[in-house]
This record gives sequence, C-alpha cells and structure tokens, in this order.
Amino acid sequence: MKATIFQGVGKVELQERPKPTIQETTDAVVRVVRSCVCGSDLWYFRGHSEHKVGPIGHEFIGVVEEVGSQVKDIKQGNFVISPFAFSDGTCPNCTHGFHTACLHGGFFGSGDEGMGCQAEYVRVPQAAGTLVVVPGSNYSDEVLASLLTLSDVMGTGYHAAVSAEVKVGDTVAVVGDGAVGLAGVLSAKLLGARRIVAFSRNKDRQKLALEFGATDIIAERGQAAIEAIKKLTEGIGVDAVLECVGTGEASDTSFAIARAGAIVGRVGVPHEVEIDAAGTFYRNVGMRGGPAPVRAYMDALLPAVLEGRINPGKVFDFVTNLDGIADAYSAMDERRAIKSLLLVS
Amino acid sequence: MKATIFQGVGKVELQERPKPTIQETTDAVVRVVRSCVCGSDLWYFRGHSEHKVGPIGHEFIGVVEEVGSQVKDIKQGNFVISPFAFSDGTCPNCTHGFHTACLHGGFFGSGDEGMGCQAEYVRVPQAAGTLVVVPGSNYSDEVLASLLTLSDVMGTGYHAAVSAEVKVGDTVAVVGDGAVGLAGVLSAKLLGARRIVAFSRNKDRQKLALEFGATDIIAERGQAAIEAIKKLTEGIGVDAVLECVGTGEASDTSFAIARAGAIVGRVGVPHEVEIDAAGTFYRNVGMRGGPAPVRAYMDALLPAVLEGRINPGKVFDFVTNLDGIADAYSAMDERRAIKSLLLVS
Repeated sequence: MKATIFQGVGKVELQERPKPTIQETTDAVVRVVRSCVCGSDLWYFRGHSEHKVGPIGHEFIGVVEEVGSQVKDIKQGNFVISPFAFSDGTCPNCTHGFHTACLHGGFFGSGDEGMGCQAEYVRVPQAAGTLVVVPGSNYSDEVLASLLTLSDVMGTGYHAAVSAEVKVGDTVAVVGDGAVGLAGVLSAKLLGARRIVAFSRNKDRQKLALEFGATDIIAERGQAAIEAIKKLTEGIGVDAVLECVGTGEASDTSFAIARAGAIVGRVGVPHEVEIDAAGTFYRNVGMRGGPAPVRAYMDALLPAVLEGRINPGKVFDFVTNLDGIADAYSAMDERRAIKSLLLVS
Repeated sequence: MKATIFQGVGKVELQERPKPTIQETTDAVVRVVRSCVCGSDLWYFRGHSEHKVGPIGHEFIGVVEEVGSQVKDIKQGNFVISPFAFSDGTCPNCTHGFHTACLHGGFFGSGDEGMGCQAEYVRVPQAAGTLVVVPGSNYSDEVLASLLTLSDVMGTGYHAAVSAEVKVGDTVAVVGDGAVGLAGVLSAKLLGARRIVAFSRNKDRQKLALEFGATDIIAERGQAAIEAIKKLTEGIGVDAVLECVGTGEASDTSFAIARAGAIVGRVGVPHEVEIDAAGTFYRNVGMRGGPAPVRAYMDALLPAVLEGRINPGKVFDFVTNLDGIADAYSAMDERRAIKSLLLVS
C-alpha cells in the first residue's frame, strides 16, 4: 500500500509499505477514505520537535476492512471516524472522559509501521473503544470533510471551549486562527456564546471566523490585543479564553484577557510557555486543557455534523491525494493553506 | 478603642486608637465580638512579605454600631459576619461570584486606620454588599467560633474544594494541615467526597482532619507522598486536589498527584511556585483558585453552621483576648496553635 513516511526535517514522501494486519485480537484494520495534515505535524516537519522516521498522519475516516476476534460492535464494512488517539474506553481515565490518557492507549502517526493514516490502510488498536460508527452512507464531499474534523481539529477546538467552560451568553476570546482556533470559534458558538472575539490578522481566516460565529476580530497582538479586549469588555476581560496556539505570547495574552474567575482552555501544545503562578492566583484565573479527548465529544459533535448544524470541514482549503502529500505539507508550512485534505479512496 | 498595630517583623502590639466613624455613605461601623489571627498574617509577621505599619486583622464577626445613609438591609444592632474582603456585590466581578476582585472592593487589615479588626471596632466599606446578617441571637461560644470561620478560613477551604470541583463520590487529596487545609477536608466532606486524604505529620492536626472527614492520612512529603497517593489510587491519582499551602513543594506535589483531567484548587498564596506548563498539559491537569470570594459561599455555609452540619470552629485551639494579642501571634508562629481566637466583646 501507499504510505506517507517522515524522512527528516522538511521531508515527507510516499512509499510502498506492507498493508497492516491484525496483530492483537482487539485490533481493526481500516481502509482510509479521507485523511489530512495537522498543524501539529508541522512541529516536527519544521524541526521544532523530535519525531521518529516512519509512517505519519493521525486523522482519518474510513471503512473497516477487518477486525480482531475480541472486537464487538465494530464490523467489517462499517464507516468509521477514528480519534487521533486510540483508547480502550473502559479504563479509569477513559471513564472520566480523558481518553488521551488511556492506560492502554496511544497515538496514531507515531512513526510505527502500519500506524500512520496518511496512507491507504491503518491498524487501529483498541478498535472497540476507539472507532465511532457513522450511520448512513453516500455522504457528500462536504459532509465527509466535516466528519474528518471530528478525528482531531473540531474535537480539539471543542475541548478548548469545554475546558474554558463556555456557557450560554458568554463573551469568549479565541486566541489562534489556525484550524483549531477556527473550530474553537465554531465550538463557542455551538455552546451558546453571545460574543466571540477571534484573534486573526489574516483576511481569509477572519472571514471564516466570522462565518463560524465570531462577532469581533482583533488583529493586534501582545499588549495592543490586551488593550483591545479591555476596551471591548469595559475593562473586565472575557468570560472564557480558548488558547489554540501554544506559544509563550499566546499564553500570556490568554491569561491577561481573562476576567477574574475565568478559565483559559488550552489546546495549543506549550512551547516555551511560562505561567505566572502568582498573577493568575490573585485574579482567580484558572486553566485546564491538554490533548483533546475527542472520543468523548463524538456524542455531541457527530449529530451536529450530520444534522448540518456545524460545517467544520470548511477549514480545509487545500485538497489533494496521497501522491500530492509533499505539497499538502508545504502548503501548510508556507501558510498557503489553513489545512490540507487528502482524498485517499 | 483598643486596636492591634503591626510594628514590624515579629512585633504586634495593642494601642489606643480613635474609634472609626462613617466616612462614606456606604460604610458601616461594627463592634467586633470575635476576631482571630490568620495564617496569612504570619507571612508579614515573619518578614516573608511586605506590610504597612498600622492596624491589622481581617476576620471578624460583630454587631453593627452605625450605618451610612445609603446602606439598606443592614441595620444598627444586626449581628453580622464580614468576609475578609469588602465588596459591593453588584459589579461584574461580584456578579460572577468573584467578590475578591470587586471593582470597588478591598481588604481589611491592610494597615489603614480603622480597617483592622483585631480591634474593638472596625469600619466596613460597601457594607450592604459585604456584611451578612446572622439570624437569631444568643449563640454558644462554639457556634460563634464556627461563624467566625466563615469570615475567611472555612470559606477559603471551601473555595479550594469548589475550585477543584469536588463531586459526590470523589477521592480528594488535601495538601496542607493548617486551618485552611482542615477546612478543606470539611468542605470536601460537605460536597460529598467519598475518600479524603489529608497530608499531615502532626498528631493533633491528623486527629482533627479525621474528625472533619478525612479517611486517610499521608505523613510523607515530596516524592514519597506522591508514591503513597499512587498506591492508594491504583496508579491513577486523585479526582481533586486542594492546595492549601502555597509553597513550591506543595504545588509540585498537588499537580503530580492529580489524575488525568483533575483540577488543583489552590488557595495557598504562591511563594516561589513554578507551574510545569507542558507537564500539566499532557495530562490535562488544570488549576483554578485564588483569594476566596467567601461572600459567595455564605448561602451554602451559613445554614450548614447554624444547622450544626459543620463545626469548623474546632480549628481554634488557642483562645485569648485583645490584651493577649502578642501571644496569639507567637502561639501560631511557634506552631503551638493551629489558629488563635480573640474574644473581643
């Protein structure tokens, strides 16, 4: 089969690899229908973090090809969404809703053979706990794109909003205009926010943010952005902040614009972030978040997509196939694209 | 009147000062019935933080002596509890339940004339928003002591538990065996925790923790304490952590023993605390808390005291009067007492 292999900084290529097979009785093998490139793939692609040479890609939807003997409820031929992390769904951490900390779980796209989904097939451990069957069939390309976002980016934006405790009527700020930030805007809207302030200096992303429910755009950064929020909120700060970047500046801005008692919901992987322990304390500003347990949000988000209440697939503005994988990466690396979709089968 | 004056590190003394008077139409003057010494008074008493020379003390109950012309609902002769912070109760931060960030608020015991309550009388700004009238009269010494804790220590322990989102059935760890930590144990119990692990190496405090609802005691610290919690929770960590100390070690331990997705509720004022931004992120461990908006918790805690469901006044194990103020401080400074009560009038 064709599989995308990370070869080192700035270099991904399609190679012929053996089709994965069932290795554990709890496994499934899925034929990938749609996959994509994640903003987090750029961290190692750009050399900002370490990554093993090997198969990559962690977001996919597809059709179940084969299941292990212990896999109940998931059957050959099922059309499924897979979270970017696999999980058994039964351990204490899963039971508490934090599937990304599953005691028997792990992550796709780690470089291990058969475990990258920017490929024709992928092996899914803990298939019964991991995969979510999508009812119906013959979905449009638009719906398929939205279903694919439930694998990571939409669930991650939603995790930011849930972590920040967005409530009906809230004024919410979303720091970051990548695909996750935009999904955060959509999530804040879905949760009933009245006013949604998107931080963006890019015209196309501003436009999509407004389409997703943003009511205000702030193009400033740093102190100027903080002043702009203070002005919008009569000096109080916002009710909830979604931190969807992970840099020190984004983190500092997020904590600074939160009102007393608000929570910063963070889903941007922290890179050189320092949290002001005393400054946040005196204002009762909290934080929570981390790798999104997107599996936990399927019950809320899958119906929202299928009923057309949300169209998160609009974050894909670059479409290619596996043969175009190098271009899919460079389009995002060069900021020509928000997010690259891969038509696999 | 007699008032306690902070004179510098290690030195408090009783002085004759003018009785406070109404200065704003929103003020009240209260005759203090009971006051006490706070663990946070020890920070400046020991020279670990700065403090203005002047009147001190921020926890009190008493009888309203006089009110300003704009003060409704609070009348001369009312028996009242005052939070350690005054607040108007109507600004956006108060409306959101964070009275310690009131736009027109402030703190007692700051060193300003007439504003310290280890004294016979105290001036209360924003009296209508600040003071809580206690129904009935002729309370026993025991009930008076418990009512006094609602001014700070019980509300602060409760804030730790609420911030950590303690729920029915939870396993909770309380880091810190001072009066606030002990009130945290009581709060976790009140909120329905099933298992409450108190960190203490002091026999008397262990005993009171058990009486307040602790099910387990951990006398270890640092890595040994973390291992002990892991052993108790089958390696998972606890559902909620109450951080009631504020040191770097207490903070590190608190974050380390939280299970994936748990929140550290912190009420210990951070001193040399560093928060591991990435380590907490990968485990989805959150934090919230700060100066407790004890005013917000009166509706929950006042009935609990009056109905005898909680007896937080048991944290007072040293009783004196204003003439014994120096001893009240040194008993706590030398760890002879958990908390010193002052019989004022």
